[in-house]
Amino acid sequence: MDDARIIGTAAVVGRKEGEGPLGLQFDKILDDDTFGADSWEKAESALIEAAVELCLSKCNLQDGDPDVVFTGDLLNQCVASTFGLREKNIPQMGVYGACSTMASSLINAAVFAECCAAGVSLAATSSHFSSSQRQFRTPLTYGGQRTPTAQWTVTGAGAAAVGREGSVKITAAQIGTMVDLGVTDPSNMGAAMAPAAAQTIQRILTNTDMNPGDFHMILTGDLGAVGGQLLLELLEKDKIIIEKQHRDCGMLIYDNQKQDTHAGGSGCGCSASVLCGSVIPAIERGEIGRVLFVATGALMSTTSSQQGESIPGIAHAVILEK
Amino acid sequence: MDDARIIGTAAVVGRKEGEGPLGLQFDKILDDDTFGADSWEKAESALIEAAVELCLSKCNLQDGDPDVVFTGDLLNQCVASTFGLREKNIPQMGVYGACSTMASSLINAAVFAECCAAGVSLAATSSHFSSSQRQFRTPLTYGGQRTPTAQWTVTGAGAAAVGREGSVKITAAQIGTMVDLGVTDPSNMGAAMAPAAAQTIQRILTNTDMNPGDFHMILTGDLGAVGGQLLLELLEKDKIIIEKQHRDCGMLIYDNQKQDTHAGGSGCGCSASVLCGSVIPAIERGEIGRVLFVATGALMSTTSSQQGESIPGIAHAVILEK
Repeated sequence: MDDARIIGTAAVVGRKEGEGPLGLQFDKILDDDTFGADSWEKAESALIEAAVELCLSKCNLQDGDPDVVFTGDLLNQCVASTFGLREKNIPQMGVYGACSTMASSLINAAVFAECCAAGVSLAATSSHFSSSQRQFRTPLTYGGQRTPTAQWTVTGAGAAAVGREGSVKITAAQIGTMVDLGVTDPSNMGAAMAPAAAQTIQRILTNTDMNPGDFHMILTGDLGAVGGQLLLELLEKDKIIIEKQHRDCGMLIYDNQKQDTHAGGSGCGCSASVLCGSVIPAIERGEIGRVLFVATGALMSTTSSQQGESIPGIAHAVILEK
Repeated sequence: MDDARIIGTAAVVGRKEGEGPLGLQFDKILDDDTFGADSWEKAESALIEAAVELCLSKCNLQDGDPDVVFTGDLLNQCVASTFGLREKNIPQMGVYGACSTMASSLINAAVFAECCAAGVSLAATSSHFSSSQRQFRTPLTYGGQRTPTAQWTVTGAGAAAVGREGSVKITAAQIGTMVDLGVTDPSNMGAAMAPAAAQTIQRILTNTDMNPGDFHMILTGDLGAVGGQLLLELLEKDKIIIEKQHRDCGMLIYDNQKQDTHAGGSGCGCSASVLCGSVIPAIERGEIGRVLFVATGALMSTTSSQQGESIPGIAHAVILEK
């Protein structure tokens, strides 16, 4: 791609995420994770709405300016993004990619910008610890123990405006293929997603004729401690060594020891807030060079797990540079 | 758009749909709606897999040929399409647009074809009466009464291959904006979606400088009896008369009197199977002229309804012609 560029970004996160190592880099940190709403689902809607509003305002854009928003989330039928953006009067294309949503939205936005199907596109997604916990796991009040491989769903949202002007370019993208090696443990999503990340990284390096040394950072989201280690091992088998460049959004957002987040962060809002709050602004300021962003998703539901299905992983990638 | 074309399509439906007025036009009709699977969700996955396989084979394509499949469905976290296409080894972009999914997938596929981001793209979606009934309403065995405004979720799937060759062109598209006039009755989706359909039709007519007389057919999916009538009334207020051209996928697929389907068909698979099984092949054969296809979605979940939310509607449109 030659012409797709990031106009600007914004990230809004919850209190725990604000207390983590990247806290100072987010545009807004909630005092209270209900965000004034009377349900966790409505709080998540308010989060994505706030991220989109902040992104537009930082880019000097109005609600009526974007031609389309590519958006989705983890809640059943993607209701966080639906209700969060209902009042915005922006044409909307729903996206579902589980925790890979920030990358799939960005790819769609970049292609629409590239061929002028849209002037300005938005890519936005969110997750909320408490709405995910209620939908996928156990009610908060149940107080269940978490396994060491479990990741902590990030309360956060990120939004990026994409067009043909801006200093950060999207120069290439790779749409991922599902990979399912038979992992069935929904408390070990990192292991389910790592093979997909490895495949997508291999493919984009081959297709662009680049190697890991061509990147300042290879940023996965969100493999966490377990999946991140597996990714390095899988790629090493094919003599692709990314240890020096590799970072993972799930490992960057929390201090896993101090914040009791076990294997790291997860959720659509994890890679969205790290990318939009920290990484893209750092590329824009010239502090970091070319980044390979690889967002990963675990394509399961509680029903598929109850019916004995394993967890297919997927990973979509974009290359970002100044 | 100048270069996006339909290479070919396929539709697979359940027994009830096969017994309806369009029965002879579908590529495959199931004898048994379980499709040999041990759950309704797995049966729906098998449906979309069969539609994609048939579409590829009718187009003389292999699994490895498409560069991307845009796909999604109504099940939580879109697991019907995920598990249906897991073995296909096709790069996948998940889409969520409720019953508007066939149009949003087609728009994505057309834009990717137009700018050569993909050589061949697939657009595919499905629904299944029994998996929807279990997830959104009441278990089949409960035997609940249905209201006269209720629509019947179609058991069916449709797939279209899109590229730069083929006799049916996608000449324009309109991405819809959510419209929410406060309808809260999940048994009256037609009323919730009609205002979005009216808005999208108005916009695409204005943007393409066309009027209803320029179309052989204006095909909505799926407003049913109630929503269809509302659409005509809403457009008539703005002096847009589409009565002569208007058809609705939900009204075409069943004989609502004889088949006890009340206000008509619905579900992602309704407009997908009618478009891919009946309408696009008829355009290809030269039997019908230019078609404005407007697929509508009700963007709600059981959680959003339980929390008192109204039902935002959305409608996406494409113009198809030989």
